[in-house]
Amino acid sequence: MRTTAYLSLLVALVSLLILPSAPALAGAQSTDIPAQYRDVAKRLIDAAMSSEFAYERLALLVDEFGPRFSGTENLEMAIDWILQQMEADGLENVRGESVMVPRWVRGHESAELLEPRPQDLPMLGLGGSVGTPTEGITADVLVVNSFDDLAARSAEAAGKIVLFDVPFTSYGETVQYRGRGAVEAAKVGAVASLIRSVTPVSLRTPHTGGMRYAEDVPRIPHAALTVEDAQMLHRMQERGERIVVHLKMEAETLADVPSRNVVAEIVGSEFPDEVVVLGGHSDSWDVGQGAMDDGGGCVAAWEAVRLMKELGLRPRRTVRVALWTNEENGLRGGTGYRDAHLDELDGHVLAIESDGGVFKPSGFGFTGSDAAYEIVRQVGQLLDRIEAGRITRGGGGADIGPIMALGVPGMGLSVDGSRYFWYHHTEADTIDKLDPDEVARSVAAMAVMAYVIADLPEPLPR
Amino acid sequence: MRTTAYLSLLVALVSLLILPSAPALAGAQSTDIPAQYRDVAKRLIDAAMSSEFAYERLALLVDEFGPRFSGTENLEMAIDWILQQMEADGLENVRGESVMVPRWVRGHESAELLEPRPQDLPMLGLGGSVGTPTEGITADVLVVNSFDDLAARSAEAAGKIVLFDVPFTSYGETVQYRGRGAVEAAKVGAVASLIRSVTPVSLRTPHTGGMRYAEDVPRIPHAALTVEDAQMLHRMQERGERIVVHLKMEAETLADVPSRNVVAEIVGSEFPDEVVVLGGHSDSWDVGQGAMDDGGGCVAAWEAVRLMKELGLRPRRTVRVALWTNEENGLRGGTGYRDAHLDELDGHVLAIESDGGVFKPSGFGFTGSDAAYEIVRQVGQLLDRIEAGRITRGGGGADIGPIMALGVPGMGLSVDGSRYFWYHHTEADTIDKLDPDEVARSVAAMAVMAYVIADLPEPLPR
Repeated sequence: MRTTAYLSLLVALVSLLILPSAPALAGAQSTDIPAQYRDVAKRLIDAAMSSEFAYERLALLVDEFGPRFSGTENLEMAIDWILQQMEADGLENVRGESVMVPRWVRGHESAELLEPRPQDLPMLGLGGSVGTPTEGITADVLVVNSFDDLAARSAEAAGKIVLFDVPFTSYGETVQYRGRGAVEAAKVGAVASLIRSVTPVSLRTPHTGGMRYAEDVPRIPHAALTVEDAQMLHRMQERGERIVVHLKMEAETLADVPSRNVVAEIVGSEFPDEVVVLGGHSDSWDVGQGAMDDGGGCVAAWEAVRLMKELGLRPRRTVRVALWTNEENGLRGGTGYRDAHLDELDGHVLAIESDGGVFKPSGFGFTGSDAAYEIVRQVGQLLDRIEAGRITRGGGGADIGPIMALGVPGMGLSVDGSRYFWYHHTEADTIDKLDPDEVARSVAAMAVMAYVIADLPEPLPR
Repeated sequence: MRTTAYLSLLVALVSLLILPSAPALAGAQSTDIPAQYRDVAKRLIDAAMSSEFAYERLALLVDEFGPRFSGTENLEMAIDWILQQMEADGLENVRGESVMVPRWVRGHESAELLEPRPQDLPMLGLGGSVGTPTEGITADVLVVNSFDDLAARSAEAAGKIVLFDVPFTSYGETVQYRGRGAVEAAKVGAVASLIRSVTPVSLRTPHTGGMRYAEDVPRIPHAALTVEDAQMLHRMQERGERIVVHLKMEAETLADVPSRNVVAEIVGSEFPDEVVVLGGHSDSWDVGQGAMDDGGGCVAAWEAVRLMKELGLRPRRTVRVALWTNEENGLRGGTGYRDAHLDELDGHVLAIESDGGVFKPSGFGFTGSDAAYEIVRQVGQLLDRIEAGRITRGGGGADIGPIMALGVPGMGLSVDGSRYFWYHHTEADTIDKLDPDEVARSVAAMAVMAYVIADLPEPLPR
């Protein structure tokens, strides 16, 4: 790591010597942004692309702290380390802002097929699920392929474990069964519910994720099997076989515990109270390394701001990196940030989140006014060189959702999403799936977008 | 399953009514094989391609019996079922031929990273490995990336667990570390050895497989970690961190136990003592379903012969399906077949194996004389219609290796191998990875090749 850090610094110093300083912007109009910011964008892109510092920092974060689940020591130790590193980076107003987060504890868990033949079924309980009684639940299984199918077979569900064997179409569509499967199964009398993991690709890989209960509906255990096993149980049912599963889950929800949103800044030179906030979420599920979801987003935003510092760039407005806690099973970081910064939100000109994996970026999805969209599109042109300049309508992120709901324009980094859901919420969300060049491009895109919007003479219109 | 079985039968009956009967072959010359066998090849291909019977039979086999490891009740129950089904299919001389097989028992096993931070490391002990002492082995880890690297660092290896973090190139090259990693590590004083799983793709998926010890070298435990964890430990070492792992393996080798090669035939009408034998291996590793390795090869060969029976085709020579036992950790099925049939081997005109997964077939690899190759290539032309007619030089299979060594021409089904090693020897070797159409093509290729070679007026020359 040291070698590339020095290399990165060297590039920065050389840049300062040979490149013109940041353009005189006093007279800048939003109509010729690309011309006015070409040089500074080039410096940021070159600095990002000439170094593997971000990738190696991400590897260090995820290797040394592992999964960073809300309520765990891992997460808080990682946050401590990030705060120390940000201080060392020379960022300003580095702080942890307290929020209370839920503490769901998985405990030991297992699913075992008993009939038609004994076999362990790899599984992951879904976040927030209740556990089973200590001795577990042993019940016949009813396999259905949709909520409609469950409705049609509701008379058969009482006392059974319902398994939703739903093929992956899109995440948004298929994840419904993770979200409300337990509720729908409990409504028709099921004693537990299982889903086929929400993924297009599996190597017998269970995927965890969040789920919900509803008022007035019994809370039953809810867990994910692998694609392979869900399909196998389905085939067994189609052959007319009786399927019996023994499910054991120690899962429980304990009292809330304190965590922190990480915040660090480069304070704006002219309008310090106006803010471009960019970030990702520091927490992950309790499996894998959370490298894609969302260590990469955190490090990309952090590195974007660190590079500005390293290059001696101080925009007119404040650029703030925020690493929100507890996105996965509570969103307390995002709501806590909104509440703690309620008075400042009128001055939040833009919020940018990266939470789709730092794969090859194509641009950003933007939610805001037409006038703002036109400006953002011009900034995008500065990223065409690295094929990351495409700005589409609609976009944001879970953590910035609460402030977007209060009027802050929001934006999410758009990346090649072809593999994200292979790894999502699994033991396989690890750093090796990411490519240093693609991480660097993500950093460059975040840096240019955040810097230019923060530096424009006029604030981004709402 | 019943529906398609009936459908398959119906197709067969209709074929008998509307197609000409098998061509008059008395005067057939090996120079115009495609013309002489076009009609019968069409019947076999049509029958194979119009049914999902083979796929569904394979699904039933692997779902109902699961993994079929040598020495387990699963394997013997699967063999019993196959024998019953073959009788019901009307095959002739259906029998199990006894062979003794090794019995390696995995037992409980685990690998835990203790330093620099605690974390479970998913792993699979390698077949034939000794276990650890009951309390396990706790030792520092030395990561190397090749045998040469180990040699260069041999002074550091004593008392350590050596981890071979070797990137996948080809199976043949990379599997060396699985095969003799324990020997090389023990030679320099290591107390255990670990490998990065032999695969180009991983979702934190350990791969098992065979390994060897050597005379006069201490036998140390040998296991596979995931690609992800091997790389992580390598990164930790590069950062100068101390790595400590606690390895526990109950693995042991017990006394040999009886198993069986399954053999069934359609006895030749003119030369019953001349044989085309085709098959796969009935055993699998003790993980996954062994659907690709090699349930699919077994069912493809079996179905090829069943279709001949169903279509009323009886070639001049005997066609014999053989499902060899214990390919994975002993090859006792292949050597046992050779020994039991030693007197008949002069009459074995061809041996065909499918053991590369019944993915989309492209043809066969052939090992035999030039004269035989010319004939086999002509038979291949009958498979051009399903793009499975390409005959290349060199090919065979592990189970037919022992009889090929005694002069029997041998042939292996060539398939699209792009995904085979993703699943190979893992929990993810399951039926859902296979495609019914591709399985049907494999059946068709095996059927046409076996039938025509068995029916030619002259035996395939050696």
